This record gives sequence, C-alpha cells and structure tokens, in this order.
Amino acid sequence: MSAAFTDRHIGVSTQPHVHHMLSALGFGSLEELSVAALPESIYITEPLSLQAAVSEEAMLVELKALAAKNTVNKSFIGQGYYGTHTPGVIQRNVLESPAWYTAYTPYQPEISQGRLEALLNFQTVVSDLAGMVTANASMLDEGTAAAEAMALMRRTNRTAKSDAVFLVDADVFPQTLAVINTRAKAMGIPVLVHDFDAELPDVECFGVLLQYPGDSGRIRQIAPIIEAAHARKAVVGVAADLLALTLLESPGALGADLAVGSSQRFGVPMGFGGPHAGYMSVRAGLERSLPGRLVGVSKDAAGNQAYRLALQTREQHIRREKATSNICTAQVLLAVMAGMYAVYHGPEGLRKIARRVHAMAQSVAQAAMAAGHTVVHANYFDTVKIAVAAGSGHSAAELVAAAHSAGYLLRQVDHGHIQIAVDETTIEADVAALAGLLGATALELAPDASAVVLPTPVRATGYMGNAVFHAHNSETQMLRYLRKLSDADYALDRGMIPLGSCTMKLNATAEMAGVTWPEFSTLHPYAPASDTVGIVEMATQLESWLAEITGYDAVSVQPNAGSQGEFAGLMAIRAYHVENGNPERDIVLIPTSAHGTNAASAVMAGLKVVAVATDGFGNIDIDDLKRQITVHEHRLAAIMVTYPSTHGVFETSISTICAMVHDAGGQVYVDGANLNALVGLAQPGKFGADVSHLNLHKTFCIPHGGGGPGVGPVAVGVHLAKHLPARELGLETSVGLVSSAPYGSASILPISWAYIRMMGPEGLRLATQTAILSANYIARRLSEHYPVLYTGAHDLVAHECILDLRGITADSGVTVDDVAKRLIDYGFHAPTMSFPVAGTLMVEPTESEDLGEIDRFINAMISIRMEISAVQDGLWPADDNPLVNAPHTAQCLTQDWDHPYSREDAVFPAGVDPRAKYWPIVRRIDQAYGDRHLVCSCPSIEELAEVF
Amino acid sequence: MSAAFTDRHIGVSTQPHVHHMLSALGFGSLEELSVAALPESIYITEPLSLQAAVSEEAMLVELKALAAKNTVNKSFIGQGYYGTHTPGVIQRNVLESPAWYTAYTPYQPEISQGRLEALLNFQTVVSDLAGMVTANASMLDEGTAAAEAMALMRRTNRTAKSDAVFLVDADVFPQTLAVINTRAKAMGIPVLVHDFDAELPDVECFGVLLQYPGDSGRIRQIAPIIEAAHARKAVVGVAADLLALTLLESPGALGADLAVGSSQRFGVPMGFGGPHAGYMSVRAGLERSLPGRLVGVSKDAAGNQAYRLALQTREQHIRREKATSNICTAQVLLAVMAGMYAVYHGPEGLRKIARRVHAMAQSVAQAAMAAGHTVVHANYFDTVKIAVAAGSGHSAAELVAAAHSAGYLLRQVDHGHIQIAVDETTIEADVAALAGLLGATALELAPDASAVVLPTPVRATGYMGNAVFHAHNSETQMLRYLRKLSDADYALDRGMIPLGSCTMKLNATAEMAGVTWPEFSTLHPYAPASDTVGIVEMATQLESWLAEITGYDAVSVQPNAGSQGEFAGLMAIRAYHVENGNPERDIVLIPTSAHGTNAASAVMAGLKVVAVATDGFGNIDIDDLKRQITVHEHRLAAIMVTYPSTHGVFETSISTICAMVHDAGGQVYVDGANLNALVGLAQPGKFGADVSHLNLHKTFCIPHGGGGPGVGPVAVGVHLAKHLPARELGLETSVGLVSSAPYGSASILPISWAYIRMMGPEGLRLATQTAILSANYIARRLSEHYPVLYTGAHDLVAHECILDLRGITADSGVTVDDVAKRLIDYGFHAPTMSFPVAGTLMVEPTESEDLGEIDRFINAMISIRMEISAVQDGLWPADDNPLVNAPHTAQCLTQDWDHPYSREDAVFPAGVDPRAKYWPIVRRIDQAYGDRHLVCSCPSIEELAEVF
Repeated sequence: MSAAFTDRHIGVSTQPHVHHMLSALGFGSLEELSVAALPESIYITEPLSLQAAVSEEAMLVELKALAAKNTVNKSFIGQGYYGTHTPGVIQRNVLESPAWYTAYTPYQPEISQGRLEALLNFQTVVSDLAGMVTANASMLDEGTAAAEAMALMRRTNRTAKSDAVFLVDADVFPQTLAVINTRAKAMGIPVLVHDFDAELPDVECFGVLLQYPGDSGRIRQIAPIIEAAHARKAVVGVAADLLALTLLESPGALGADLAVGSSQRFGVPMGFGGPHAGYMSVRAGLERSLPGRLVGVSKDAAGNQAYRLALQTREQHIRREKATSNICTAQVLLAVMAGMYAVYHGPEGLRKIARRVHAMAQSVAQAAMAAGHTVVHANYFDTVKIAVAAGSGHSAAELVAAAHSAGYLLRQVDHGHIQIAVDETTIEADVAALAGLLGATALELAPDASAVVLPTPVRATGYMGNAVFHAHNSETQMLRYLRKLSDADYALDRGMIPLGSCTMKLNATAEMAGVTWPEFSTLHPYAPASDTVGIVEMATQLESWLAEITGYDAVSVQPNAGSQGEFAGLMAIRAYHVENGNPERDIVLIPTSAHGTNAASAVMAGLKVVAVATDGFGNIDIDDLKRQITVHEHRLAAIMVTYPSTHGVFETSISTICAMVHDAGGQVYVDGANLNALVGLAQPGKFGADVSHLNLHKTFCIPHGGGGPGVGPVAVGVHLAKHLPARELGLETSVGLVSSAPYGSASILPISWAYIRMMGPEGLRLATQTAILSANYIARRLSEHYPVLYTGAHDLVAHECILDLRGITADSGVTVDDVAKRLIDYGFHAPTMSFPVAGTLMVEPTESEDLGEIDRFINAMISIRMEISAVQDGLWPADDNPLVNAPHTAQCLTQDWDHPYSREDAVFPAGVDPRAKYWPIVRRIDQAYGDRHLVCSCPSIEELAEVF
Repeated sequence: MSAAFTDRHIGVSTQPHVHHMLSALGFGSLEELSVAALPESIYITEPLSLQAAVSEEAMLVELKALAAKNTVNKSFIGQGYYGTHTPGVIQRNVLESPAWYTAYTPYQPEISQGRLEALLNFQTVVSDLAGMVTANASMLDEGTAAAEAMALMRRTNRTAKSDAVFLVDADVFPQTLAVINTRAKAMGIPVLVHDFDAELPDVECFGVLLQYPGDSGRIRQIAPIIEAAHARKAVVGVAADLLALTLLESPGALGADLAVGSSQRFGVPMGFGGPHAGYMSVRAGLERSLPGRLVGVSKDAAGNQAYRLALQTREQHIRREKATSNICTAQVLLAVMAGMYAVYHGPEGLRKIARRVHAMAQSVAQAAMAAGHTVVHANYFDTVKIAVAAGSGHSAAELVAAAHSAGYLLRQVDHGHIQIAVDETTIEADVAALAGLLGATALELAPDASAVVLPTPVRATGYMGNAVFHAHNSETQMLRYLRKLSDADYALDRGMIPLGSCTMKLNATAEMAGVTWPEFSTLHPYAPASDTVGIVEMATQLESWLAEITGYDAVSVQPNAGSQGEFAGLMAIRAYHVENGNPERDIVLIPTSAHGTNAASAVMAGLKVVAVATDGFGNIDIDDLKRQITVHEHRLAAIMVTYPSTHGVFETSISTICAMVHDAGGQVYVDGANLNALVGLAQPGKFGADVSHLNLHKTFCIPHGGGGPGVGPVAVGVHLAKHLPARELGLETSVGLVSSAPYGSASILPISWAYIRMMGPEGLRLATQTAILSANYIARRLSEHYPVLYTGAHDLVAHECILDLRGITADSGVTVDDVAKRLIDYGFHAPTMSFPVAGTLMVEPTESEDLGEIDRFINAMISIRMEISAVQDGLWPADDNPLVNAPHTAQCLTQDWDHPYSREDAVFPAGVDPRAKYWPIVRRIDQAYGDRHLVCSCPSIEELAEVF
C-alpha cells in the first residue's frame, strides 16, 4: 500500500510533467483547462456521489467478499452453457496475457498477424465442424447469432414475400427465441414457433431455424426437414453444438445453408453467461452476406502470405444506414481461446472429449431408467430429458431441490420433467451422485467411452485436417505457438495505441484479477438466485455507479457490446413513443459525422435515418437541425449525437440541441463512445440526454482483447427505465432480451467495478482532466506540423484530436495510410484512420500514457512530417520512399537495397531504440487481392497455390 | 479431461514419431532401448510404488484440498519474514510469465540482456540501500547469506589467527544463528554470541556480525561498535532489513564492510519460508571476494553497452576445491521481483511504505503502553517488543493464544514478552484489533505517516538515484518495461534449451498454479503448526515420493538449492563417521569429470578432496580408484559420483564402485544432477548409494527462473536419516539447519508435487525413456558431423551427449564459443559449453521436446557444421565468417556490409523462419573487458563515460 491506484493508472502523474504540459497550453491548472474546454452549461463541480477510492488490495478484499457470496454448485443445467476445462497454458498465456488481452481490433493487419492467424484457426474449426465453407470471427453469443441469422436469411431470400414468416424450432433454447423475438419485432418479421414432428406449416417462410441437438437434448434427423424447407425455397439455419458436431454429421453435409451457435464449451468458462464467442458459419455463396468480422488470407507487398480482415465493405461502419447488422466489437479474445482449445486438443482430442461426455450421459440415462423414470428421448448427445416417475415419491421440483442441496444444479423443465446435461468436467463421482439422487440403487455405468454407442446421424465427414491442429498437442508446443503469435502483434504492452474514439487506456492487473476467480467464472447464468447473490450484487452496484457517473436513472449491463447497447437504447425510445401513443415517431436525426453504427442500429431498431449537416467547425449545423425538425416534426423519434463529438470537440450548443429536440417531442440519444472526456466533469443524463450506451471496454478499462469482449450498458432517464432489456426469460416486457444472458458478459464486469472502486470520484475526474490535457498537448505540439481539423472553445479539443492530412496528401501524394504504416516502423499503432473524416488521423492518448511516451509519439509524427517534406521536395520519389514502402520488416533488410533511403532510415528512424524495436513480420498487405481470392479458413496447399 | 498430462508433458508422444526415432537407433521399443542403455545390475522393472496418475484438474482439486487445510492468519511474527504486497503487474508479468520463469541462468549473456538488466537493478537497490559499492545477484536466504559472510570475513581477514572467533550479535535472528552454527562447525570456526551492550569480549575475532534492526526490534547505534571492531582488525558485517534502510542510515555509511539480509519483503510472498532472494553487499575492495553471481556492465563486439555475469573466475564451478563457496543456483526470479518492486515504487514510494510501517508500529507501541504494558526498546522500526504487564491478567502465552483465535499471529519471545512486527500489509483495523487484544481501551493512533518520528540513526545518505527508478511508476510503464526486458531474452517459451546437465524441461502451467495460491504463499514459516497442516502434509508427501523414486529411506526438502543439498548430504556422511567413532574419515574421492561444486561442497563440509582419474571412455578409472582407496583407506569418508556420469553415460561399473567404497568403510554419494535419466528405471538408493541430493529444478519441473529458485532435497539411507537437517529451531541435532526455513523454499514444492502426481509411475518412467531416446537420436544423427565423445553399452548415451569439437577447432579455428553464439542466429540456446570437457558441447533435449524441435536443432547443427567446413576450406576467412561474428543483431543489418557472407546468411540461415525469428539485441560480449572495468550497479553517466 503505497502509491494510490490513481497514480498507477494515470500516466502523467508527476507535478513537473503536468505543469510542463499545462504550460504548453497556457493554463495554470487542470481545473482551469477543463473549465475552458467544456461548455459552462454542462460543467459540474460537485464530486460524483461515489465511495472514496480504495487501494488495489482493499478493492480485492471487497471483491472477494462479493465473490464469497456466490455458491459454485456443479451445473448440469446445460441450455447452451456447459462446464469446460480451460487448458492452463491457454488461460495463462492468452486470457491472462496482456499481449493478447490489450490488443486492438486487427484493423492494422500488418501488426496483428498473430491474432489474425488465431482467428483463422477459429473460423476453420467452426466451418469444418459445421460443414460449411466459412465462418466469421465470432458473434456475441448464440442468441444474437441466431437473430443475425434470421436477418441474413431474410435479406438473402430474394423470392420470399415481405410478410413471409421466420420458422423457429420449438426445441430451440428459450433465450435464443427471446433474442430472436426482440430483434424480429424491431424488424417487423413474424416469428412462428413450430414443432417439426409435424409437417411444415402452410405459410410462406423465408427461413427456418433448427436446433441440433435440441433444447430438450433430443437429436432430430434434420436432413428431411431441411429438404422440405428447401423445397419451399426457405433458407435453413441450424443452431448447433460444436462439441456434439465432433460426433454428429454436420449441418452442412445435411444440406443446411448456415449454422450458428456458441463456442463457450471450447475452453471458455461459463462466467454467469458471458463473454464467450458465438459463431455463424455459412455455405458457399453466402460469405459476402456474413455479418461481423471475417479474417481472410491475402499477400503483402513482398508477395508473402498475410492475413487481414476480409470484405470490410460489408461492415456496418462503412455501410451506415445500408448496413444489415450493427455488430462492431466481436468476441475476439474468447474466439482465440476456443480456437486454441481446438488446436491443443486436435480433432482426435475433441472427439475423445465428446465420446466421454456422451458415455456419461448414457450412464445418467441408464441410472434414470434403473430408478424407474422415463428417458424421454432416445437419441441425445449430452442432455438427458427425464420424465420423473410418478411412483418415485419425488416430484421434479423436489428432485431439483434435493440435487441443489447436494451441490448439483439440474434443470426443471416443467412439473414432471427434469433435464441433466453433462459436460467435459463431469466425473464418474458426479454420475454416481446423480444416480443416487434419481433413486437408482444399483448404478450401471455405460460402457467405456471408446465403446459407447454414438448418437445419430453419426458423423462421416472429416474436420480439422490442417497441420495446425496436429502440431501443438504438447504443452511446450502450445506455449511456443502462443508466444510466436503474440510476438507478431503490437498491443498496449509494447507502446501507445493512440486510437481516437477507442480509448486504449490501461487495463490494470488488479482489475483483471476477478475475471478468473472461479466464484465468478464458473457460474451458470441460470443457476438459482441463491447461488448468485454476490455477482448480482456486484453487477447491480456497477449499474448504480454507472448511473451516477452518467447522470441517468437506470442502467442495464446486459448488452454485450456497444452495438447491442445502442440497439437497446433505441428500442427503449421506440417503446416510449408507442407507449405515449406516438408509434408514428420513427425518424432519427443523425449528424453526418456520426459513427456508422449509429445509423445501422437505428435501422435495426426499425427506425428511419435522416442526416443532419455539420458546419465548418465540425459542429452540428443548427440551422439544418431546425429545418429537419420542422420537416419531420411529427415523425421525429430522436436525435443521436456523440458527445464530445466524433470530431473530438465539446460542442457548445449541446444544451440547445437537446432542448430543440425535446421541444419537438423527440428523445435525445447521446452515444457514450467519448465518455472518457466527460466522467466527473459532465453528465449526459443531466445536460439533456434521455439515453446513452456506454462502452465499458473504452472508458471503464475492459481490455479490447483484440476486438472483444465488450460490454455496452444502456443508461436511461427514469421515463425510459421500464423499457430496459428484460432481466428474466419469459418476462414479456416491451423490449425483451437483447443478449442471451440476463447480465450479458457478467464475468468481465468486475473489471469496471474494480476500476471505479479504486479511482473514486476524485480519481475518475482527474483521469478525465488528464486525458483532455494530453490530447490538447498533442494537438498543440503537432499543430505546426499537421493542421488540427477541429477545435472548440479556446482553441481546445476534448480528449482526442483530428490531424488533417488532406492538404499534405494533395501536395505530396503521401496518404494517411502511408503515415499509419510508417508509424509501425517507429514502433506505434496508428491513430484512427479516416474517421470521422476521410484523409485524417484521429489521435487519442488517454490518461494512461506518460509524458515520455506522448513525446515519443509527437516526435515520431514530426519526423514523419519531415519525411513527407522530403517527398514533397523531390528528394525521394513519390513511389519509392520510406512512407509508401512502410512498414519495413527485418527480412527486407537482407535483400538487395536500391531505395533512395538507407536501411537504417527504413527501420530505425529518429527516436527508435534498436534494442526495443517492434518488428512487424509482413510488409504492407494488399487488401483487395484477398477479397478477390477469398480464403477464410486455414488454407490447404492447393488453395495457397491458387491464391499465389 | 482429454489428453493425459503425460501426453502434454512429453514432447515425442505420437507413435509414428517414437517409432521413427527408435528406428534411427535400431530398436523396436522404448523398453528395448532402455534395457540396452542401462546396466542390468541397476535396472528395475517393477513400477514405482506411487499413486496412479491423475488429470490436471483432479490434481488441482487434491492440491486445493491440501491448501484448504492451512489457515492463513495475519502474521505479526516478523523475525525476517513479513507480509508484502506483490504488485499485480509484477506477479502476472514476472512470477507468472513463462518468458521470465522458464529462462536459464544468464551464462549466454547475449540472449539474457533482459534479466541481466533486471538483476543489475536488484544489485543497485541493495548496494544503494546498504551503502556499499556492490551487491551480488542474490543469496539463497538471510541465514545462508550470513554464513557466507562469515566465510568471506574469515578468508579476507589475512591477519587474524586461525583460531580467531566469529562474534555474533546476541540480537541476531535465531534461524540465522542456527545456519551460521551449522556452517561454522563444518569449517571449524568458533562462534561467540555476544551482547553488544557490553564491551567487545577479550578474544581475537576475525569478524563481527551485527543485526540492524535486531531480532528484538531494537535498533542499536552500530557505528561505535563497528569502530571498536575495526580497531581490533575485525571485519564487520551487518544483517540489515532493506525496508528499514530506507529510513535508517546505511551500514556502509556507518563504517561496515558488508551487509547481508533478505529482500523478501520487497514484493515476494513469505511462502512458508521461501523462496526469496537473500543478499550480500560489500564495500569497495571486497567485490572480488563476493560469493555467487554478480552482474556487471561490459560491451559487445559493436562497442555497445551490454551486461553479463562478471568475475566468473571466482565461481565455484571454476575454482572447484579452491572454491570459497559452493553456491551455483541463486534466487534470480525472486531477485527480479524484488528489484522490480523497487523500480515500481521508486525511492520515494519505498520511503512512504517504510514511514507508514513505522507509524503503525508506533501505534502498536502506544496501545501497549496505554494498556499498561512496557515497550522494551524505544528505538525500533517495525517490531515492538512488549513486556506483558503482570497486572494485565494475561500471560504472554495467553495473549498470543487470544490473538491467534482472533486471526492474528504474534510472537512469544519468552514467559513475559511478546513481539509484534507490522509490515506493508498492516491496516488500521489490524492495529485497532491488536490494541484491543493488548487491553488498550482508548486507542491512540500515532501521528500520520508523514509526521511520524523516525528511528535513529536517521538516514542522511541518498539512494536509488538512477533514472530507472524514476521512470516506471505507472502500471503502463512497468508493464512495457517488463515486456521490453523479457523480449530481449530467450527462454523455453521461444524454443529448446538443450543444456546438458540442466534438464530444461516443460514447467507446466498446472504445476505452477499452486505457487501463487494465498493458502501457500502467505504463510509465515513460524506460524503455529495448526495453521500449516496442509503445506506440511504436502511437503511430507513429496519427501516420501522422492524417497520412493530414488530408493532412499528419508528425504529432506529443506536445502533451497542443489549446493545446500550437497552440503547437507556430506555433513550427514561426516556426522555418521563421527558417530561411528571415525572422525578421521575426512577424504572424499571425486572423479576429475565431476561438477566443480562437488569439490567445493566437500571443502565446505570440512572434507578433503582427492581426485580419481577417468579413463578414455569417460568412466571412472577403476584401477586408480583402487589405488586411492588403498592409499587413503582409513581416512576414506566417501566417494562422490554423478550417475549417469557427467559424461552422459551409464557407467556399467557403478555397482562395483559402490561395493569397493563400502568395503573400505566409505560412503557413496551420488550427485542427483542426472536423475532425469534414472527415474523409474533405476534407484540410486537401491543400487548402492547412501546419499544423494536432487535438483527439483531439473528433474522435477521447478522452472529455472533465470537462475533460481532451486530446491535441492537431500535423500539418504536409513543409517543417515538422523543426520538430515533439523526441522525445528533449537533442536540440536548433529547437522542443524542448512537453510533458514524448516521446509526451505516451501512455496514452490507444489510444482514438483503436482508433476509427480500427474505423471504417476508409468508417466515418470516413460518420460525417462523418452529423454534417453531423444538424446540418443540426437547423438546418432549428429555423430556423422560431430564426434560424440563418450558412449556406453551398445554405443548408447544416457539422457545427454557430448559433441567433441576439439578436432574441428584445431582444424578450423572455430571454437565451441563460436558454435554456441552461432546457434543464437539459428534461434537456439547453446548447449552446455566446455563442461565436463573443455572444447565440447553437451546436449540434453529432455523428454519435453518434440521431434520437430529436435530435428530443427539437428539441422541447425548440421548447417553450422557446413559453415565450419566453409571456413576450413578457406571459403571464408577465419576471422570473418558467420561463426566468429555471431550472434548477429537486426541492427548490424543496417550497417555497411563487407563480409564474405550475405546479410541473409547472417540472420536467416537454413531453417530459420524470418517470421518467427528470435533477435538478440547485442553482438558478442567482451567478458574480459567488463572484468577489467568493473561496474556492477546501474551505471551513472560518469561511470559509463569511463568504461567506454
């Protein structure tokens, strides 16, 4: 207990450094600076009403006390969440390794080859098991994957009429159905739940979703159903269990068009519901319709194989209101874990696990029968549905209660039925105990796993034939593979990631500690409430703290990404207008500078997007806003603004804007992406906004994980509180579930809880002020070299600044891309490129960077500016200079060198310490090439030959 | 639960690979191979009597159950062990990071710059705080450091007579005195315990050891004592607490010649006694007398600053029987942690912690006085000695018992006194509770830490002025610093470390898990037995398992390094002869091929070394052995042999050798360094040996940690069992304590426990057989390219092989050094160089390497052989070729290139994947230069200028 956590978290923490930076800006104190930067109308001086900060150790004691209020009973509930063993080597070297968890989304593929390869493994595992041609690099969970599948089926089925229904298997997981219903309602899609024991109903359906194995554990013979549905021109999706697919014939081989599901049981703890990686996998022809992120193979400037995100033109941030999904953040860290689990076990290992699970399930079934109960379905994988014998003396409820007392969680389906789902962690002693509970006197165990009778249809097709799945089966091999991949990548443990709008701040170890505590990580999301008192209390505290910080009245942490929070927030607005008798209010005003996801989410929520112009300073054009309000007066649902704006400034007219929209009967949605500039200084819920979503993976320290997990809580005013996502299945609130689990990605909430607890009101405010200081210091120092596009009052920016390279590009031919790639040679991750304005770089240092690192960045940017001048001055040709050739690998140094600049200039430009150099392993990657030759799974030799 | 742990641990685990390797050797099965390799006389076929293997998960459940038997009460015992907060960023990124914990001792400095820098930080912290000129890179613990200090004082005091005494402060820690006594007895040094309140006694003393603060908490004014001792020409050492030294004037400034102590409380958990880094720091003039390892600054071939181990000519493995200490393994990983703790807190942070601790101690003292007790010493730092008031109604024992019931551990000194030692983890609530226990009704807390009255002599001299201690105070900075340093290093997470005699095998994550469980890591070594049931049970189980594996009757895990185990084993032999009335038996026969430490340990144990010749095959020359036995018959104490021999072969005459020595009344000591070739196949205790020490950090998976921690259990036959190290303080057995703590480095014992538990008898045997297979495969495949120096029966080696380069060197001028450094360019750590035979390389792959990695190594060695041929053939000059110039950095590629080989040949020779290249950050280091210009702490600008 020495330095306060605040001093560990905030990089610029010594008075001389703070003073130096303030002086550069002409301010005497942080308070003066923030008073000058923020509009007076929104500025708060009262401290937030939060508990005072505690030390790291004291926080951990408190968190441990909450953890101790949970009871970890062994779950046999199943229903999409299963016990699993996270291999130690993966837990320690992925989940607990900053090299993996502090990485950003691989938009800069040259410095992300490691996690791109890991994601390609994931895609290969999923698409091989599903029997499809490709899979994306993860969905948020099974429920949202199913909802996205519905949307995909709807838009790819060109022949179905607009009122065609979506036919859903009655044996689907209830939470999946709930998420589908939420999304379908927003999109106006009729959902029909159908028992496929009967013929297809006599309605037109554009798509069918089957569950395989079903929620009841039953494995249906789906091939004939798929055939019948195809005969009706429906697209067919299958929600399938990946472990079961190691034994069961794949959906693809049985004719399905796509598959969705969860990869949780591949080594990712249940975590009270999340996070884990959902998946979607599609047959040939549907690749370009996949939502979310997709890794593909391409080549670099040297002609070598390289990975990058493929088909980005599909993505929501580019397609805006034409987007078909609003997903940005995926579940990269968890997809990496699941992929590595498969790499470590290999196909044989997975099959062995699955056979053992099935053998255990057979033992349970036999015990049930021996005790006189009825096993309802004969063909199952891991889940046994039991009709409790009337004469057994126990009701289903009593059996479940008795099991609970004995430390086992069973699932009560209804009055007369229970289900028992076994998994990788089930041991013989568990089965014996369950048999005893069921009343079996003489336990007959199933034959050993190798001799077990397999469920049908037995898998005949192969999977995971690539070498990667056969070369990392010893722990040493796996350890080195993980190290090799992470060494290729640049993450926060190497240096600054100054990504505007992404807030890449410290993810402190103490914050991460709770994530892997079994008291949190091994809870089933549907465990009895008495088992989950501590985690619910923690999540509820966090919700209340976030409400205080944002000035709203109610918060839900259920949305497991910003995109889901945004959707939930807009759904709340829609429900509000409907409730008030104004269902016609369906227009959302969105400034042209907004993040593309705003528009995509609005469309998903069934709203219509109207653009509002921005003025020459990047602010919303008040005149245009007035015009739009007048034109759309009676249909105005809301305005969506980001504050401070995506231009990185505190618009002074924010209060006016809120008032104008309210006066016209609209609601104000403030995108919380830039909340890191507000915490402790202003509260959206107090300065006029009605709803926000936050990004805990930005402002509240959840690491980016290479592109997820994220958490996107939705925060609302009191009038919208009843329209927050439902917390329980079956509660028919107006909005319903937006994610599969009641608390979304519950197991990572301790990160943000810990951050707030250790910072306290003063620390949080200081962090914000420091973030503003650092951004302004960079803007000021770089402004002589690059025009800063927008500033607000007193020539100040907020917590980020946009460097305008358009003039420089016009003069020199050097593009933002060139500068971004050249920064790699200097040992930096690029700032955000061409957002919100094409041809610019948006820089956000966050409060966690220290003056030394900030100056290193500034000096690199100045040095790059001088390099650009050398091109402008004709010293270096436009097509052969260190910028257009960037990044430079070590490998290129060994080759003939006929460039007009030296090898040293290439890789050790000014300020780069050769002893601490980050080496990218590929040259600049050809994005278009990979899209033309699409390969999105581990390539076979033949595929490689074709591509190159 | 899928792959058995055995398959994760053993690299060559697929049948085709095993078959391929066996075929190359002409054997049909592993069993055939091992039958052929080992002498029939020692070969066992019965499985070891150990429990069958369990899975990783089941092992962790069992270990957790043992952990749960411990009770972690908050310790106020002190006595050299204190609560401390390990900063999360250090725990996760050093203690739990394979990049740090799987590294080897930095004998190859070019690939060890990261940990060398970290150790230089440690040396700087220690020597700055101690006020000395330098410190070594750690001792095993405070007790052994004090014993080594005694030896240093004895040998550097050239004027003192041989019967001069060693004067020890009566206020020294009792365990320190016990370890000193053990060592002094062996060396024949008279120890006199003295209360320095009195004048110096009227005897000649060569050295004085003071404790500062004392065991009683009292801080004595040591300057006058030092002056008086110096006047008597005694050398003066001070056992000093590093945290106290942030407030107290340094021993150096007060005139002392050296300081010793522990760095445990700098962020290293107590761990029931260890491991942690002891320290020794000396004044100018004594540097070259320091035992152990010492990091110094030198320069590389490019003239750049570089670190390496300095003054290696002092070390025991070089000086053999002339050695003054037998220390090899130090406590590198823990020294790195302690150094980083200091880097993270900086001098101001450390001072703040110390002031707070002192303020807490003052509060305790005030509470004691308020309750009517007497505070015995007025000048203290953290430990308050309390004379329990007769009228308080409670005896000292009752107070301690009451505190225990309340969750607090106090120290009972005697009938009427207790001591309370506070530390970094003490919080206000603890002090309040203690006050209550003492009977204080109205607690008067001391003034706040910043206003506290400091103990005297108040420190006036500065410390830790180097930039490194002021630039890593935010967590982001520290994280990046740790990453940067570890990136410079090569450890097992990058590739094979084929070090003969060092057994660099997998350190599995599951084995490491228990180390950081608080139930083990936060136990005080002198906690009541009722609190430590689980850890004692675990350690006792491990001892019994090791006894079964080695075939001995009793084992002690107390020795915290191989050197200590060796010393303990030889002391047992000595005690045995004395007990039997043969005190004259003092000669140890040691083959010339033995590790230098054997001889050094023998000398330390007061024995005399006589060399035995080896024959042309590397075996002990039986005729010479006969001769020596005859010559020394009545003085023969023992023979020390390594088995299989340090030449890497199973000598067939081992049974004969044992019998010959026994017949002559001697004991047989088998050095267990090569036990990895025996486990499950032969048992030294059964084939004729009386005592062995083992290296748990070799055969039993404790990671090398960059040069420690180690554990060196001593295993003995039943007749020697009573001469094992004492388990309790004050028990006057013949041998006494060899390490400070009863179970030595107790907190890392779970690693070996877990390994044995998960491997079971079959797995352990299979591992040994695989290690033999892999070594022979390498020997066979490389024998066409490099002569294999020694083989045994059927032309087989044991688990390692010696490649003889002497002929090649004579022909080509290319040395083993050149090959070792060239291997870096190929992405390997060098094999063991010039041990046991100069001019050779000893290769040990262990069972954990897979065929792919083994073949990669073989191919690299073949490729290097071709490069040597190119030199021999005159294609490349002897003074300019890729071998003599190795290793090559990325930096050298950017410079002018006028070598006769290409840049590509330099850094990407055959088989090196440019995308997975390990880059050393320095060129070859000039060892001698650094020894001539000795700088062993973080260099100041002036020092650097002088060196360069």
